[in-house]
Amino acid sequence: MPIPRDFRVTALAGGVGAARFLRGLVRVIDPASLTVIVNTGDDDEFFGLSVSPDLDTITYTLAGAVDSSKGWGLPEETFRCLTALGRYYPETWFGLGDADLATHLFRTQQLREGKSLSAVTTAIAQTWGVRSTVLPMSNDPVRTIVHTEAGALPFQQYFVKGRSEGQVKQVELHGIDTAHAAPGVREAIQSAHLVILPPSNPIVSIGPILALPGVREAMRATSAPVVAISPLVAGKPIKGPADRLLGGLGIDVSVGGVAGLYRDFLDTFVIDTQDAAQQHQLEQLGLAVIVTDTIMSDMEKSTMLARVVVEHEHRKKWRVESGE
Amino acid sequence: MPIPRDFRVTALAGGVGAARFLRGLVRVIDPASLTVIVNTGDDDEFFGLSVSPDLDTITYTLAGAVDSSKGWGLPEETFRCLTALGRYYPETWFGLGDADLATHLFRTQQLREGKSLSAVTTAIAQTWGVRSTVLPMSNDPVRTIVHTEAGALPFQQYFVKGRSEGQVKQVELHGIDTAHAAPGVREAIQSAHLVILPPSNPIVSIGPILALPGVREAMRATSAPVVAISPLVAGKPIKGPADRLLGGLGIDVSVGGVAGLYRDFLDTFVIDTQDAAQQHQLEQLGLAVIVTDTIMSDMEKSTMLARVVVEHEHRKKWRVESGE
Repeated sequence: MPIPRDFRVTALAGGVGAARFLRGLVRVIDPASLTVIVNTGDDDEFFGLSVSPDLDTITYTLAGAVDSSKGWGLPEETFRCLTALGRYYPETWFGLGDADLATHLFRTQQLREGKSLSAVTTAIAQTWGVRSTVLPMSNDPVRTIVHTEAGALPFQQYFVKGRSEGQVKQVELHGIDTAHAAPGVREAIQSAHLVILPPSNPIVSIGPILALPGVREAMRATSAPVVAISPLVAGKPIKGPADRLLGGLGIDVSVGGVAGLYRDFLDTFVIDTQDAAQQHQLEQLGLAVIVTDTIMSDMEKSTMLARVVVEHEHRKKWRVESGE
Repeated sequence: MPIPRDFRVTALAGGVGAARFLRGLVRVIDPASLTVIVNTGDDDEFFGLSVSPDLDTITYTLAGAVDSSKGWGLPEETFRCLTALGRYYPETWFGLGDADLATHLFRTQQLREGKSLSAVTTAIAQTWGVRSTVLPMSNDPVRTIVHTEAGALPFQQYFVKGRSEGQVKQVELHGIDTAHAAPGVREAIQSAHLVILPPSNPIVSIGPILALPGVREAMRATSAPVVAISPLVAGKPIKGPADRLLGGLGIDVSVGGVAGLYRDFLDTFVIDTQDAAQQHQLEQLGLAVIVTDTIMSDMEKSTMLARVVVEHEHRKKWRVESGE
């Protein structure tokens, strides 16, 4: 059954894990029918520059411009400016490549001139020829702070500088109480034919988006099926500290633990064949379960996974609508 | 006669021409006894970054770090960020190297945090191990605007983008009426044993410094001898548009024309051997004249010229003080 061109998909995304899925998704659906709502809780300021790691990873990936070996940044990067910054600053652990710096300079200048992060994100995406809609989750600053036994660390300090070490005690979303979802975020969830949670970190990537006022409600209220792809395979994330964060917060480090975080709005959960043994348990939560290969080691595997997800949901939707 | 270590010299400086002289001067006097007052009329903002071309040229040169072939910027520069900025901005004609960008990022961030340009300049100079005192002429923005038949152009647009083309009609120092000399500027002129105007552009490099309230008065009032080195050799500048600017403003494009701009405070004028024929005319203005090789094509020639200047003035001062 072919996917119609107007089959609108909305994805909630963190960085590399989500991007790996989305690069396949835009080969399965019309890229112009995709809206990506991107976490900005990881945003930070380095050397006076406004850096939005997840937004850039998604945009560079959708543009086909990302460094595919790292999954973020631009290919064949050099770090001459960062090295030179070491003369002025004691810490240069956040890897800003020379070409990538242009994006941060542009974003910083545009924000200083009073543009919203939404407007800047749209301009950056258009500059790179991205046909999908890329939305920051909010135009208000939300900063994810990871509390470990060593103290409270802004996310990039915990993740990049601290290499996700230290027992996690709490995750704080600084600013979330006064932040609003960016224009278009709730609408994109409500008007979609399918809502997807790619395999992003449920605590620090998907969590901040869902915590914005009205977003979780929109996820519950949308008539579109909601599908999540497990970020855990055999109890481990492919990349990043999802296991440490889940474990630190007392959540079971398993597909069941992740599904529990989404159970109020989730329809279908996609798990890896390595976790097939947990299919029955998930079905008992009332979820449809897809068991497939979720490890997206290359573009072909990303595309296959996206196709499995989209065709499953489109077929289901078609069955419901046709009364089969 | 050896130069004593506490022989304090203050120089008023533009960019490359001044820097070529100063690199020699700090081999003749104690670098810690040198104060350089640097033009900031050429400053501009590119991509949201506060760029101070003359300050950086002086600092990099005094640090022995400048690209000696160009006379500005850092050696073996790459321009990957600038190339990438071309994706976001229509114009990337101002050459910002990747390593050099670190200086602009640092300055921009410090200024945004409320530091003065003086404080940032001191921090940058210290970072580079410069022992001399580098002062911006002012902490207030002064912007040199060159009016040509094509319109009013900020200096870098006239000089770098426009390659100094177009008939100059007027030079405007935007902001000069409300600007103050930076702390230490007038004091450095008044307390020096010797004040030097290296071969900088008299209109757009030395001119803005002298136009600041109280600076020209300090030049007249200082008990130190004031020496200028002609930026013209046989009616032409070694670099830059001094001839076009002088000519456009109706000033004689000659050593006499330059001397006339400084005659209210100048004691000694250093001219090139190619201009020896004009020595007598300059002496008739009441100036002491040094005729020597002023083309500083290498470090040795810079040092020789600095030695001629310093020893001449130090000897003269010694003669006056000893009553010879």
